[in-house]
Amino acid sequence: MKIDGKPYRTIWLAADGRTVEVIDQTRLPHALEIRPLSTLDDAVAAIRDMIVRGAPLIGATAGYGMALAMAADASDAMLGRAYDHLMATRPTAVNLRWALDDLRHLLLPLPTAQRATAAYTRADEICAADVAICAAIGRHGLPLLEAAKSRKNPGQRINILTHCNAGWLATVDWGTAMAPIYMAHDRGLDLHVWVDETRPRNQGASLTAWELGKHGVAHTVIADNTGGHLMQHGMVDLCIVGTDRTSRRGDVGNKIGTYLKALAARDNGVPFYAAVPSPSIDWTLDDGVRDIPIEQRDGAEVARVTGRLATGAIASVEIVPAGTAVANYAFDVTPARLVTGLITERGVCEASAAGLLSLFPEHAWAA
Amino acid sequence: MKIDGKPYRTIWLAADGRTVEVIDQTRLPHALEIRPLSTLDDAVAAIRDMIVRGAPLIGATAGYGMALAMAADASDAMLGRAYDHLMATRPTAVNLRWALDDLRHLLLPLPTAQRATAAYTRADEICAADVAICAAIGRHGLPLLEAAKSRKNPGQRINILTHCNAGWLATVDWGTAMAPIYMAHDRGLDLHVWVDETRPRNQGASLTAWELGKHGVAHTVIADNTGGHLMQHGMVDLCIVGTDRTSRRGDVGNKIGTYLKALAARDNGVPFYAAVPSPSIDWTLDDGVRDIPIEQRDGAEVARVTGRLATGAIASVEIVPAGTAVANYAFDVTPARLVTGLITERGVCEASAAGLLSLFPEHAWAA
Repeated sequence: MKIDGKPYRTIWLAADGRTVEVIDQTRLPHALEIRPLSTLDDAVAAIRDMIVRGAPLIGATAGYGMALAMAADASDAMLGRAYDHLMATRPTAVNLRWALDDLRHLLLPLPTAQRATAAYTRADEICAADVAICAAIGRHGLPLLEAAKSRKNPGQRINILTHCNAGWLATVDWGTAMAPIYMAHDRGLDLHVWVDETRPRNQGASLTAWELGKHGVAHTVIADNTGGHLMQHGMVDLCIVGTDRTSRRGDVGNKIGTYLKALAARDNGVPFYAAVPSPSIDWTLDDGVRDIPIEQRDGAEVARVTGRLATGAIASVEIVPAGTAVANYAFDVTPARLVTGLITERGVCEASAAGLLSLFPEHAWAA
Repeated sequence: MKIDGKPYRTIWLAADGRTVEVIDQTRLPHALEIRPLSTLDDAVAAIRDMIVRGAPLIGATAGYGMALAMAADASDAMLGRAYDHLMATRPTAVNLRWALDDLRHLLLPLPTAQRATAAYTRADEICAADVAICAAIGRHGLPLLEAAKSRKNPGQRINILTHCNAGWLATVDWGTAMAPIYMAHDRGLDLHVWVDETRPRNQGASLTAWELGKHGVAHTVIADNTGGHLMQHGMVDLCIVGTDRTSRRGDVGNKIGTYLKALAARDNGVPFYAAVPSPSIDWTLDDGVRDIPIEQRDGAEVARVTGRLATGAIASVEIVPAGTAVANYAFDVTPARLVTGLITERGVCEASAAGLLSLFPEHAWAA
């Protein structure tokens, strides 16, 4: 998508054909900084420290991380080490495992001399595939927004609530939950997005608000506590969220707090959709609430908030009394029963095993 | 309650018998500062700027505000002006209107020479009545915690989730939602409190965590997004929240986000109680979702977060891109159907008109 008129992706190969460049998302929305990744360790740190984040972008970065490792040392030992180090960065994102398994499967049978080139090519393909998936999610989700618009009075815009950042910054381009919104906006549909700030890391306030603003989409940032009230009073026409991992029966693992919004949507008859790229579906899991592992992150993310001081400098402030215990569960799981539909790259389906299998029959073995 | 072993209330008369002193809650948890209120304007500013907050404490401060006004000028004109200025500070808190109507009704028939003394006496009585109400809520709520404990295995503590600050800092002493917790803790019941940080003003992270810590009650601060996940996984035994205004049928107006927690409690079979001092019941309102007015506050409360820098200095940081639109709805309303029971100073009742009238039959005229 565009930043001040210039098209960007979140990850790309530098002019040297070897170094990978990414937008440093820990610096947004305060500064647009490009960070080069030159080694496996750079790629590991980029994922672990959330310089890149979002399941699809994590997968793409992992692919390039394998390529960077092979460019330095294409031995079996390095292949194993790169796989292990990258896998250990973020336990929840299923795309990470998917990309790493894919690369290992491709590279292991190859002579070492061919591994680096093959890995770069495969990482490029992962990026291209992600862009294609997100664009398809946008095309399939667009009619849902057009239908919502058709239910409004003439001149009334539609209001969409989203949580966290499932925009283009979470992917290579387009985004997942945001793809239909960008497509609708680009076609002139009058819409407005309620952006949950998404504590504790504020990806909504910092990333979603930034990318919507840079693309010219009307939006308002709200505290995460607010969505229920808005839905009670008819101020939300539909919700669209992303997912980090979706079970085969349609339970949606996503940023902590998604479940609460889904409950409010159900209580008020507001359609609640998850944008689900198929690589984020874990066909081996059935009961997502029980079985999707929930990452616990550093409590400092809850205890401290980072932003701009009046001077323009970036600083963190501590919001709890010194020494207070904090807990930081990063994700929750929204049961399929609360999800109106899943927007995938093959179309929109019911949030159920039958719904997903109708679009992805090749996974019927998982039944 | 106690701060480092010393008993405090949130508001009291200074040694001169005229000046009112309050704990400046905008400085907590970073500093304990006492602020003198010497004039009507001081009292108005204290309520408006949330130096004092919480419906019962707002009522008490309004009472003393009338007394400060009368001490300066006991004319009918000043009585009317004090009433109007204090009433305009916070539209949601029903205690404010209740206290002001009470004072005006008392003072208007009196000769001007008697008004100041009568107003101070009445404000003292409002404080004493609030302490008595909160202590009674504590006594009536205590068996709910003891029952929750009896359902746990031996050695397991009970986990209580609360939202915002309905502790002693929100009242004159004891608190509403926190009163049963303090009583249970003082009796040796093994308990732990999940404290929602309560964006946008972080009253949970700053005030509830502070007062629990100073009293020695085990607690953990969480992002507001977290409660649903905790309840899905059996980590919450009951929820207790306060209320700013409750309708006669038991709809609970409270800090924004309360409704979302009530939905999660219902979805997971977790008991959800509101601690309801009777002055916060608006017997003229039936449908709270429709009719309780929701205060919209300055968007800067969402856009900026205040806390301690690493240097120890207090600072605010901006968390949204410059110029981003923000909305700040301060309260929401939890429908009575989601509330397991109301803990009042006269006992615990069903959240319904029949339930409330069984304890407050003198309000049957409102039916």
